[in-house]
Amino acid sequence: MQNYITQIAQQAKAAFYELANADSAAKNFALLRLAELIGEHESALLAANAQDIELAKQKNLSDAMIDRLKISSGSLKNMIDGLQQIAALPDPIGEMDEFRLRPNGLRIGKMRVPLGVIGMIYEARPNVTIDAAALCLKSGNACILRGGSEAFSSNMALAKLIKQALKEAKLPENAVCFVENTDRESVGAMLQAVDLIDVIIPRGGKNLVARVTEQARVPVIKHLDGICHIYVDESADSNKAINIVFNAKTSRCGTCNTVETLLIHQNRAAELLPNIAAKLAEKNVEMRGCERTREILPDIQAACEEDWATEYLALILSIKIVDDFGAAVSHINQYGSHHTDSIITENYTRANQFLRLVDSASVMVNASTRFADGFEYGLGAEIGISTDKIHVRGPVGLHGLTSQKWVVLGDGQIR
Amino acid sequence: MQNYITQIAQQAKAAFYELANADSAAKNFALLRLAELIGEHESALLAANAQDIELAKQKNLSDAMIDRLKISSGSLKNMIDGLQQIAALPDPIGEMDEFRLRPNGLRIGKMRVPLGVIGMIYEARPNVTIDAAALCLKSGNACILRGGSEAFSSNMALAKLIKQALKEAKLPENAVCFVENTDRESVGAMLQAVDLIDVIIPRGGKNLVARVTEQARVPVIKHLDGICHIYVDESADSNKAINIVFNAKTSRCGTCNTVETLLIHQNRAAELLPNIAAKLAEKNVEMRGCERTREILPDIQAACEEDWATEYLALILSIKIVDDFGAAVSHINQYGSHHTDSIITENYTRANQFLRLVDSASVMVNASTRFADGFEYGLGAEIGISTDKIHVRGPVGLHGLTSQKWVVLGDGQIR
Repeated sequence: MQNYITQIAQQAKAAFYELANADSAAKNFALLRLAELIGEHESALLAANAQDIELAKQKNLSDAMIDRLKISSGSLKNMIDGLQQIAALPDPIGEMDEFRLRPNGLRIGKMRVPLGVIGMIYEARPNVTIDAAALCLKSGNACILRGGSEAFSSNMALAKLIKQALKEAKLPENAVCFVENTDRESVGAMLQAVDLIDVIIPRGGKNLVARVTEQARVPVIKHLDGICHIYVDESADSNKAINIVFNAKTSRCGTCNTVETLLIHQNRAAELLPNIAAKLAEKNVEMRGCERTREILPDIQAACEEDWATEYLALILSIKIVDDFGAAVSHINQYGSHHTDSIITENYTRANQFLRLVDSASVMVNASTRFADGFEYGLGAEIGISTDKIHVRGPVGLHGLTSQKWVVLGDGQIR
Repeated sequence: MQNYITQIAQQAKAAFYELANADSAAKNFALLRLAELIGEHESALLAANAQDIELAKQKNLSDAMIDRLKISSGSLKNMIDGLQQIAALPDPIGEMDEFRLRPNGLRIGKMRVPLGVIGMIYEARPNVTIDAAALCLKSGNACILRGGSEAFSSNMALAKLIKQALKEAKLPENAVCFVENTDRESVGAMLQAVDLIDVIIPRGGKNLVARVTEQARVPVIKHLDGICHIYVDESADSNKAINIVFNAKTSRCGTCNTVETLLIHQNRAAELLPNIAAKLAEKNVEMRGCERTREILPDIQAACEEDWATEYLALILSIKIVDDFGAAVSHINQYGSHHTDSIITENYTRANQFLRLVDSASVMVNASTRFADGFEYGLGAEIGISTDKIHVRGPVGLHGLTSQKWVVLGDGQIR
């Protein structure tokens, strides 16, 4: 198995070096052509997907899994839109900046470059195949895509179109490689492919990501929990607080940027908590409160220590009354997952302190945590949301798939 | 042992969060005060170092090791200068940029932030203790320093002064933590401290770095080989070629930015190789050539396949004649270590192609590879040179010890 992966990775590496010669026009041609091909082959793609769905049902996979697996005309349309958007983004590769003239006459600056070969390990969603291929290609990276066995037929049907688009654009077909072996061992082999794969991006449930992190010898950009907080400060505007908490909890509660814990300043709890609770009741949100919260909302369940460290991904909200701003920040840094946290306040100084002191990938003032998303941030698309601290934090777009090298322009200088 | 490291790392993490409140003035005060303290305690530091040297001699450590271990008045002066330089650098933390106004009125941009807790694992050089403490403190990171057992007394003497400077600056003393256990197990425990240590930076020989990379579950910023190339292009200026090759090989041949392989265009070999060889003979450089090179320089040894992939760190140079520019680039990307490579050319297009196509942390035109260094690049200081591709490439200064988080400024927006 390691040989199989080594062979694919060597092909990808060779394609990566060829890709360095490609100009933006060729990359964009491939993206737009792929969009056309998806439109032209809608029935074949739906038929391949139907095979996957059929098998999934035979295997009694969960409805949630089948939902993630399913391709519809609508989801094909989304893939096409995404490809057109990525084609329209500026090409980040080759950007040069920070040039300084040194005392010895050297001009030294930086150039933005691809990372190399990116290994994507993901589960049931076939759209990841298109998103990953498109973002990697646009950013000059070769990629090795290893999707889940559940989506095998769908992915192979998409792979055929990707290869065709690359060929028509005169780009190396191995710029996007597929691991057709969906045994667990193929994931393990990718994780060990030091010097061949430059970074691994896992996309999937916690088990997959935890396993990848545990076993990888290749660097990983990963997305773990989203335990997001909203802190309603002493100086919060009441309506903003109620609307933002309601939106951040209920607009789509299965996503990582959904709020899981509400912290509220002790001087605003008595007034605001009943209103927030009433609003949340409209959507039957289950609330779990600290002792002081339950003095105000006596009918709700008690929150235990574990609640503060739980990503519910459900219509459940834990609530804690805090003594002051400092206690809120400490709670977030201790129990949060450094994903996304928001303060509701009209106080300028508190807002700035929150931005500085909360150690999360996204820090917000008077906004719903649900905005933490590549499209909402204007990245055009995202390949995932990083909860790591090195390389890239938060939504990962094209820039997150690049690095910078040093450029030194001399005229014969020696040291 | 894991408990011991966990306890230290928790103290460091708590100090990191306190440090987020510290302003630049306090950090600079600590750095400048530490510089003073080193001056004031010169005799105590030299005495502590003498103990280490004495033990090293008893243990029959190599002269090279003892040389790295030794502190002199001169090296203390360098530490003091380094501290003053780092104090004078702009504080990178809190820098905000790339703010854009989104259609929904959100303003979204980025803020530069520390990484968190940085674990340094290093060997005999006591100056790393000061460099690492200073760079981490200035960049708002807490650090855990685990130096080699050989330098134990020197490091503990420096630790005392670092703690005193932090105390006088009213900064948390645990902003710089020391692992006083120098068993191998303490390194192993640091490498496993996921969620407590945010990044590990190993500084030392290949064995140390390889072990760290092999075992680490915490992200690593590492420095492996420097197999650097100079490619003398068809359009090279003869004098620049001769002088740069000579300088890059001989000015200090034990460093990672020394050239190890010379590639030369076939149309310039007959004219230039004898002159380059004559110049290198002044310093008794051993040359190893490909077959075609040995037709021109018949007295030199033959280079074997292994030579192209070897970091000599000695007065040895491998030489290969290449058919054209493309062959040079392919050779560098295949055999190099992606560290630093330079082209000698007067041709504008070739220069630009080299910068783009060579996949190395530093790419140069008409300059000695020896310039790949934090001080020469104007970073003020460096904590190491990264040969990794994610997060940071090449010399790692203050910015390399930081990341960026997303800042979202709203006015009640919901999604």
